[in-house]
Amino acid sequence: MSAALHGLLFEDPEVSRWFEPAAHVQFMLDVEAALADAEADAGLISPEHATSIREAARAERYSCEAIAAQAASAGNAVIPLVRELTAHVEEKSKDAAGDVHRGATSQDIIDTALVLQLKHAVPVVQSTLDRAAAAAAALARRHAETPMLGRTWLQQASPITFGIKAAGWMDATERARMRIAVALSRALVVQFGGATGTLASLGTHASAVSAALGKRLELDVPPLAWHTQRDRLVELACALGVACGTLGKIARDVALLAQGEVREASEAPVQGRGGSSSMPQKQNPVASAVAIAAAIRAPGLVSTMLSAMPQEHERGLGGWHAEWDVLPELVKITGGAARAMAHALESLVVNVDRMRENLEAANGLPFAEIVASALTERMGRAPAHARVENAARVSTREGRAFLDVLASDPDIVAHIDREKLDALVSPDRQAGTARALVHHVLAHWNRG
Amino acid sequence: MSAALHGLLFEDPEVSRWFEPAAHVQFMLDVEAALADAEADAGLISPEHATSIREAARAERYSCEAIAAQAASAGNAVIPLVRELTAHVEEKSKDAAGDVHRGATSQDIIDTALVLQLKHAVPVVQSTLDRAAAAAAALARRHAETPMLGRTWLQQASPITFGIKAAGWMDATERARMRIAVALSRALVVQFGGATGTLASLGTHASAVSAALGKRLELDVPPLAWHTQRDRLVELACALGVACGTLGKIARDVALLAQGEVREASEAPVQGRGGSSSMPQKQNPVASAVAIAAAIRAPGLVSTMLSAMPQEHERGLGGWHAEWDVLPELVKITGGAARAMAHALESLVVNVDRMRENLEAANGLPFAEIVASALTERMGRAPAHARVENAARVSTREGRAFLDVLASDPDIVAHIDREKLDALVSPDRQAGTARALVHHVLAHWNRG
Amino acid sequence: MSAALHGLLFEDPEVSRWFEPAAHVQFMLDVEAALADAEADAGLISPEHATSIREAARAERYSCEAIAAQAASAGNAVIPLVRELTAHVEEKSKDAAGDVHRGATSQDIIDTALVLQLKHAVPVVQSTLDRAAAAAAALARRHAETPMLGRTWLQQASPITFGIKAAGWMDATERARMRIAVALSRALVVQFGGATGTLASLGTHASAVSAALGKRLELDVPPLAWHTQRDRLVELACALGVACGTLGKIARDVALLAQGEVREASEAPVQGRGGSSSMPQKQNPVASAVAIAAAIRAPGLVSTMLSAMPQEHERGLGGWHAEWDVLPELVKITGGAARAMAHALESLVVNVDRMRENLEAANGLPFAEIVASALTERMGRAPAHARVENAARVSTREGRAFLDVLASDPDIVAHIDREKLDALVSPDRQAGTARALVHHVLAHWNRG
Amino acid sequence: MSAALHGLLFEDPEVSRWFEPAAHVQFMLDVEAALADAEADAGLISPEHATSIREAARAERYSCEAIAAQAASAGNAVIPLVRELTAHVEEKSKDAAGDVHRGATSQDIIDTALVLQLKHAVPVVQSTLDRAAAAAAALARRHAETPMLGRTWLQQASPITFGIKAAGWMDATERARMRIAVALSRALVVQFGGATGTLASLGTHASAVSAALGKRLELDVPPLAWHTQRDRLVELACALGVACGTLGKIARDVALLAQGEVREASEAPVQGRGGSSSMPQKQNPVASAVAIAAAIRAPGLVSTMLSAMPQEHERGLGGWHAEWDVLPELVKITGGAARAMAHALESLVVNVDRMRENLEAANGLPFAEIVASALTERMGRAPAHARVENAARVSTREGRAFLDVLASDPDIVAHIDREKLDALVSPDRQAGTARALVHHVLAHWNRG
Repeated sequence: MSAALHGLLFEDPEVSRWFEPAAHVQFMLDVEAALADAEADAGLISPEHATSIREAARAERYSCEAIAAQAASAGNAVIPLVRELTAHVEEKSKDAAGDVHRGATSQDIIDTALVLQLKHAVPVVQSTLDRAAAAAAALARRHAETPMLGRTWLQQASPITFGIKAAGWMDATERARMRIAVALSRALVVQFGGATGTLASLGTHASAVSAALGKRLELDVPPLAWHTQRDRLVELACALGVACGTLGKIARDVALLAQGEVREASEAPVQGRGGSSSMPQKQNPVASAVAIAAAIRAPGLVSTMLSAMPQEHERGLGGWHAEWDVLPELVKITGGAARAMAHALESLVVNVDRMRENLEAANGLPFAEIVASALTERMGRAPAHARVENAARVSTREGRAFLDVLASDPDIVAHIDREKLDALVSPDRQAGTARALVHHVLAHWNRG
Repeated sequence: MSAALHGLLFEDPEVSRWFEPAAHVQFMLDVEAALADAEADAGLISPEHATSIREAARAERYSCEAIAAQAASAGNAVIPLVRELTAHVEEKSKDAAGDVHRGATSQDIIDTALVLQLKHAVPVVQSTLDRAAAAAAALARRHAETPMLGRTWLQQASPITFGIKAAGWMDATERARMRIAVALSRALVVQFGGATGTLASLGTHASAVSAALGKRLELDVPPLAWHTQRDRLVELACALGVACGTLGKIARDVALLAQGEVREASEAPVQGRGGSSSMPQKQNPVASAVAIAAAIRAPGLVSTMLSAMPQEHERGLGGWHAEWDVLPELVKITGGAARAMAHALESLVVNVDRMRENLEAANGLPFAEIVASALTERMGRAPAHARVENAARVSTREGRAFLDVLASDPDIVAHIDREKLDALVSPDRQAGTARALVHHVLAHWNRG
Repeated sequence: MSAALHGLLFEDPEVSRWFEPAAHVQFMLDVEAALADAEADAGLISPEHATSIREAARAERYSCEAIAAQAASAGNAVIPLVRELTAHVEEKSKDAAGDVHRGATSQDIIDTALVLQLKHAVPVVQSTLDRAAAAAAALARRHAETPMLGRTWLQQASPITFGIKAAGWMDATERARMRIAVALSRALVVQFGGATGTLASLGTHASAVSAALGKRLELDVPPLAWHTQRDRLVELACALGVACGTLGKIARDVALLAQGEVREASEAPVQGRGGSSSMPQKQNPVASAVAIAAAIRAPGLVSTMLSAMPQEHERGLGGWHAEWDVLPELVKITGGAARAMAHALESLVVNVDRMRENLEAANGLPFAEIVASALTERMGRAPAHARVENAARVSTREGRAFLDVLASDPDIVAHIDREKLDALVSPDRQAGTARALVHHVLAHWNRG
Repeated sequence: MSAALHGLLFEDPEVSRWFEPAAHVQFMLDVEAALADAEADAGLISPEHATSIREAARAERYSCEAIAAQAASAGNAVIPLVRELTAHVEEKSKDAAGDVHRGATSQDIIDTALVLQLKHAVPVVQSTLDRAAAAAAALARRHAETPMLGRTWLQQASPITFGIKAAGWMDATERARMRIAVALSRALVVQFGGATGTLASLGTHASAVSAALGKRLELDVPPLAWHTQRDRLVELACALGVACGTLGKIARDVALLAQGEVREASEAPVQGRGGSSSMPQKQNPVASAVAIAAAIRAPGLVSTMLSAMPQEHERGLGGWHAEWDVLPELVKITGGAARAMAHALESLVVNVDRMRENLEAANGLPFAEIVASALTERMGRAPAHARVENAARVSTREGRAFLDVLASDPDIVAHIDREKLDALVSPDRQAGTARALVHHVLAHWNRG
């Protein structure tokens, strides 16, 4: 089971499972097996030895508990793992055992296994982001012309349509997904340098073994080992962090729209989800909580990856170790946040009537910008702005409809008569341009 | 087992065990049981009901896996736990079941359980810091007069004694321990407010139940629930973060002293610890790696706790959830770093001869400050500084002993003759004042 | 002027002015002057020399631009400053010039000057927090019995009073202030160790000079120099960071209450403040923006202070330098956030009617907890919770008053008749206990 | 002058000048002018009005102090700036004044001005990184075959060449530069959406004005305004943060190599740079301090940008404001770190003799891996590793040459005779493969 009681709440099991101890051990064994195969490919060791090693490299033959216990004193898990692997191989062939871990250092195995974990886990996050983007795109299409209040500084502002808001969610989610894809592709590189990155112990076989190892693991082979140049991993961490920020922004919007006084959209009620142990009426926005929590946690994890970068000389002290839990954790919470918001957007309850009601309840004030703009063309910027600002004050103070206040100012009516004013402040006035805008955004991503 | 293969490397099991799922469940049940008892104490429910609840509140009767699975959809672990607890109580007494979780909200249970976890785990960290401080104090006493190079900006500088360096470690470790003790004492408060912090559903019993709950759990009762005022926990997080920084500073010093070119101190070799899977000659400073990694990770965890603080209204969305994994993780890595450095300092291999050799190999240059200071009294600051700087350049460039270069400058010898110069640059010149200084520091903490 | 166009928006000039270049130079000169005086006190140098140095130590005689330009190549500002100071002293007395900066290293001056900056700036922050706490206390007193919706997970929840909310703000602000006071008192220590912390060049005068320096500057004298033990400063940084978090929490509450759909409280409108360049009707919550921005920025600044802690050996490389801009920035934004929220709370517009309207508009649902609790006593927890949950669903779905739905359930009415139900759900039901709670909190801080 | 006495130390004036108040004001005016021109291009306003606006948009006509003072109450600098600009335009043409800031909101101006600042400042950082990479490439070429100790976990390890180390620096610096270039290109987008991102007040002219504005400012026009979708800026912040990490890694390597006990490389001495106010012999690695400080500070700044991402609805509260100082600060310190390390690498003093001496002083132990590897082929992995480990222990304990110890073990000599052993442990053994490796890396970037 997960390490924490709430692991399943904050994570996506399809992502997190690649980081569980048994999977971790298997990935490290996969690297050892691929290394032996690659060395056979390069003619350094015999194919039979490679076969023996590959056959011994099955995680079910190893005790995670025992490896963890020994890792605590050895300093990492590869040292006991190689010892065990060697023993298993030796049972079959003493000679083959001599070819275990040939030319590699522990960090080669740990880093390459991490890369394999990322190769399996991160695409799941990408797919989930794709689901979230698709759901946002569907909302954008469906509600391209649905008028609602825009809100700035947490205050009611000029009207928008819900489609524009959802298009913004989609657009940013797509960028987040694309950014992760690029960063992942750059991070999918073999780590193989031996003790100090020179592969000296492999002599002239070094580059052939490297190339074969890359081919075997379907990973790129970088020009140099990157034992203390961690930027590729950090770039991926950054992309994940940005994705959490984007998901957190969507979640915050959803949660704010779901407030009892707003009620314009909310996470779909699910039996047994989001209840309260004290308040029977509650329907808590659990998905938003998950995504906002991830957006709060990701910056600290990214900053740790950045802080760990100045690693000393050929292999570092402490900086490398700081990464071990942090990057997996970041992948996991990004996966959990993506899953939560994909589901929330796919099943979002949109209250179109309430959007219109809230807009109408604002008494016309959200149209102050458009009125001021129209007046500016006739009477100049400063007077127009001042006059509209004054009308807004009167409207708020006296609770009168903004339009009525405007229409009672002869200087205003002299420029824009009541009929034109009515047209300016219609909630549906923007429908056409809003649809065009939404379609433009969707088309940009082929989501149209 | 731990969630990660290297959990035992980075953590102290005596600290971490309080955060394991089963312990976590037990603490939450302890809070439910204490609440029932407190409500009986306050005359709100019958003592028999409280007894039934207490008897059902044993973690071994609950499946962590099942609770975790339900927590994922419910939004937290208390909802399924209370459901299970109610069912268990009901088996004995249907009436008693009605008194389960009376007046509480999920967050009351989760937060108070966390406080109990901290109450058990953090004092272990404090004791380990005490061990580390004691070990540093012993080094300070033993080496109060052991001369060695001081180093600033990673350059050789004026001499110190190893005792002074160790006294600095001790002094800072004691402050770290004290700071944690104070912060913990302030964080040991009951969380009990019901749905929105008013305990409204308990009516006039509210304050009596609160007081009794505090007494039962041996926790303070704050004037208000702190569902969205998280500063006490954050203060503790800060104190833990500062401790990691201090341990990281000591670890970095140890690792730098252990470099092959310096070799003045090193972690004691332990069979099977710190080896390399590629280099048979290696003896890696594993404890330092653990503590430095903690010092790199702690800032991100502390910053997350701070970022989570602006929680909305009466109970927050996402901010609270961001804390769940983060504060326990911080306690765990502080525990691991403290354990690593306590052991490293207790068994530190100090190479007194090498300290003296490195000092002597510096050719007298570390004494430039003391010589310049002595000359300043005679010839004024600027000329003295310039003359000594020049002699240092000549000494470095020509590889001549600094003292010889100084002694060959008639203007210098006119003020300080060779004999006086010799006395100034003796490695043991500071012995007396160093001892006094060390004792002063030790006495400050009663470590003398 | 400030370094940025918006410096006056985010900062409090009464705090920030202590960090301006000219003030900074003066504090460094103050340390040099106090050092000379202390050395005269200790009989190390002549009182006349000290007087000459003190007289030359007036910032208006120095060019900040020139010092800054030379600091860029020298590596710090003290090196050129001491050169200038020496030249100024030399104009009067060549002999006195030899006593400038006696026994000190640059870091002694920079760190002690920083401590003096903190000594002047931080108490201003404390006073402003006190103002904010007083304003919150006044709100708590005035509105102890003013009913309003509680809100959890950004959803409407059981009712509270506004006084309880304000009491929570006050309580946390007082803790923030107290924590800063304690941390500041611990950070007000002289830094004086010379090149490597041993004060070796002062010989037997060392401790007398240290003591006199502390007395002259009214700072404590720690047992050891703290060139690479930065925990006191970091503790202060943490306390400031926690204060920003608390202010951010209050600001978020205020901003959420000020939403157009809620309108229960808002920052007082000020002519020319919070307008919009596009929307004449807007009244933006500028103070909340300032405090929330500080709460978002502080965690990164605190984490930097923590990350900088592992400084090498006797004086560090890079870690120390990382602090230079960061701690002042943190003091400044905390000052700005405190000022913004003190003013916002002092002039907060509270809309008592709207609070009641929103509560009433919730159709009785906020009382679900209290009804469920009352029913639990009669029919047991699970059935009571289920029945009330169901009634809440019906009420929401059909838009009927919650009370009517409840009263239409014969099983409920069998236990609690309509009259009792009415009493349970009265907004003013909690008035007495709320007032007692508020007074309890205020009394705790003598704010009653 | 800079805001702080040490601004010139930590920053590159060629980068920082674009963020000074007067430059900031000019960029905002440039946006207003380009907007007017674009609106003329789109036929919305008359070309004469645009000309009047453009002519009034010269920063020297505005007082930064006055704008800053008014920004503090208005909430941002655009509100007073637009007021002033309108007044200036009005002097010439009352009608033209009506067309100032047409359709825009303050955030449009502030964000687009920021983008223009980035467009000018960030390429300077890129050029400086290019200089650093070129310098590292030159070192790599020159020292491709220069043997030196590799070091892992801060311990001596298998030998490398200095060229390989420098090639690693170059490789990572090039990636850092490339990553910034890509992120910058994506961030160079116009912000133009009006009050809530819909450009509603421009009606059918909206997209034509947007397109013209992009053309005028030579910026891309994104499909949607990004008022609360900040990922492009955060991506750039991440790329800058990663660059700081890479520069910090190089700086740490340089500083470690410059230690008195190592002395293999050091920053070139510059008259008046890196001196000490207390120790005349010191030559502090100032550039490394600058770069390490940046690497410590950048993570906190990046994390703040990430934390600020969840901005509410159409324009956010506090999150946006948190960015204002933070992104410029990050650009500035990256510029400063790049400049410091470019210079340090261009003038790095490399001590080839000392590299060889340190390698030889290691008594042959750095070759343990290569010997173990050779033995493994003959006797199997475990026995070979054990035997070499044992020989290493004996060599260390007894101070005997590792080779002699190996050669005294008949089992070893039976497999590898003394002559072969000698060949294995020659410092120059790797020369050929090292050169090939270095050239491979250089060729990858066309640095060969």
